[in-house]
Amino acid sequence: MSIQRLFIHVATAALISFGLSAQAFEALPATVPVPADNPMSKAKVELGKQLFFDPRLSVDGTISCNSCHNLMASGTDNRPVSVGVAGQKGGRSAPTVWNAAFLTAQFWDGRAATLEDQAKGPILNPVEMGMPSQQAAVERIKAIPGYAEQFKAVFGGGDPVSYDNIAKAIGAYERTLITRDSAFDRYMKGDKKAISTQAQRGMQLVEDTGCTGCHNGPNFAGPTSLPMGQGFYQKFPTFTDNEYVKKYQLEEDQGRYEATKDDADKHMWRVPTWRNVALTAPYFHNGSVATLDEAVRVMAKTQLNKELSDAQVADIVAFLNTLSGEFPPQSLPRLPATPNGSPVADK
Amino acid sequence: MSIQRLFIHVATAALISFGLSAQAFEALPATVPVPADNPMSKAKVELGKQLFFDPRLSVDGTISCNSCHNLMASGTDNRPVSVGVAGQKGGRSAPTVWNAAFLTAQFWDGRAATLEDQAKGPILNPVEMGMPSQQAAVERIKAIPGYAEQFKAVFGGGDPVSYDNIAKAIGAYERTLITRDSAFDRYMKGDKKAISTQAQRGMQLVEDTGCTGCHNGPNFAGPTSLPMGQGFYQKFPTFTDNEYVKKYQLEEDQGRYEATKDDADKHMWRVPTWRNVALTAPYFHNGSVATLDEAVRVMAKTQLNKELSDAQVADIVAFLNTLSGEFPPQSLPRLPATPNGSPVADK
Repeated sequence: MSIQRLFIHVATAALISFGLSAQAFEALPATVPVPADNPMSKAKVELGKQLFFDPRLSVDGTISCNSCHNLMASGTDNRPVSVGVAGQKGGRSAPTVWNAAFLTAQFWDGRAATLEDQAKGPILNPVEMGMPSQQAAVERIKAIPGYAEQFKAVFGGGDPVSYDNIAKAIGAYERTLITRDSAFDRYMKGDKKAISTQAQRGMQLVEDTGCTGCHNGPNFAGPTSLPMGQGFYQKFPTFTDNEYVKKYQLEEDQGRYEATKDDADKHMWRVPTWRNVALTAPYFHNGSVATLDEAVRVMAKTQLNKELSDAQVADIVAFLNTLSGEFPPQSLPRLPATPNGSPVADK
Repeated sequence: MSIQRLFIHVATAALISFGLSAQAFEALPATVPVPADNPMSKAKVELGKQLFFDPRLSVDGTISCNSCHNLMASGTDNRPVSVGVAGQKGGRSAPTVWNAAFLTAQFWDGRAATLEDQAKGPILNPVEMGMPSQQAAVERIKAIPGYAEQFKAVFGGGDPVSYDNIAKAIGAYERTLITRDSAFDRYMKGDKKAISTQAQRGMQLVEDTGCTGCHNGPNFAGPTSLPMGQGFYQKFPTFTDNEYVKKYQLEEDQGRYEATKDDADKHMWRVPTWRNVALTAPYFHNGSVATLDEAVRVMAKTQLNKELSDAQVADIVAFLNTLSGEFPPQSLPRLPATPNGSPVADK
């Protein structure tokens, strides 16, 4: 058994051990998984949308969730790494927020189990939104009367504006951010002309080459039915004896190990989605690879020890482009005002 | 004749010299002035909206027009001064973009005649969007196929993606950003219950105190019918022997003089709008005054040499709050993609 077949075998075995099967090609499910403790409601989603677009959740009022997860671009900022408050750069490239609801673990290293857990991170990260504490974020939101009213209506209870509830509202909104109706989805539903013959060749190639050993399931990010918090991880790079590893500094960041400090997690990464991947350049956790063509070559070599021809790369890229979905229209939410003053200090 | 009456007299004389009359209280006109060389069209407005929300117009892809002129907050960022690329701070507070279409000169110092002229500034300002040249901005936009197509359809000609046309599209969009239907406008149209009796007292007070000597006309920023490019300026601060001038550093910035180097322009400023003023804290060109209450006190003292009682200030603030209008709903524009790559470099 070759090393790359063993690798695929391990991934498959991992799925079987959960009693799951993952298909290489699936349309997106009709419904998103919703945690029992954060049921969806229209008012909660609307509140979460306001928070998502509100830079007042950052210490100096300059960065909103949408700053780095720019919804109507690609759900990312199309930068190698993001820029947070005071011009500070982050350590990893912003993943797309579109379809993140189907991931069973969040962040590149899967360190957050849910969208709610994820939302709590950037607000407090000193190089992202830079709020000094959960309490500071809560006080900021409490100082905005329109928010205080909405939190009361949505969450009730004696202390509705809490850090947990801020995260719940944002998570609920993010569960609406699904890009259905890609050319690929139409193809899977029977419209055989929805994707070109080149893209169809690419579709066959990603299976034959072994890419779908990991990039499978409806989100092309592994199974969507793992228990919430159980990420689907792979080692990246697996094959390190090639030009790409050094050129793109692929081993500098140790991935999940940075969060767990468990040696077994060194260079382990949550398998990222292929949905809208053509829109989210530059690529990889460090944003070091500028184009999708090159990202395909790098992955074939570092994960499957294969070298693809230019024609094969072009076919695969044509297929990946069919995974760009329709972005549901988003009305900009009116941000609740603080008449006569501003809650934002000049930090 | 007292100094403050002389001051009002000069402002009035300036109006008369243009053959214009300015009323203290007017609802917004039904139509906005449109320059002959930039007629409105639906496609142009849609293109301008995309550009307004597109951070790729900044050198590092982090700052859009909307970053500092946050439409659904107040058309400002509610910060003392704005933050541009690489965390750099600007020198003046971002004025609101709402109803800027009614101003006859743009920027705090009126140095741009039109919205189109204004739009050309921040893109190239090194501490705002930081593009190194007009050509760099044009090349960035040309590299985005969806933009190239739209510019061709909207502007035609041999070279449709030009810096002038970028500004024209943005200007056309900004002419749609009008906040009609404030409580004040409803009151002016005959609904005598649209504003409280306190606000009605405040309305009388701003006239009696002399505020409407400058803050008159439908935009409360002086006449809207001056020739385009002819700003309506006043000296600020006029009365300098008071605690506020030093406390809020009101004389450090020399206003229009910084642009013209003409001694007559020292400390001259375009009269800013009162529309939505309750939403645009902090106040003044340097954003040094945190609340509207204090801004009212400062203006009464520095411009009219008057001291208002707390009750008078509260009445005036109640009136100013009636000038917060309805923000027309904005759908977020889908930003044209650059499949497989990003035009944004990591600056």
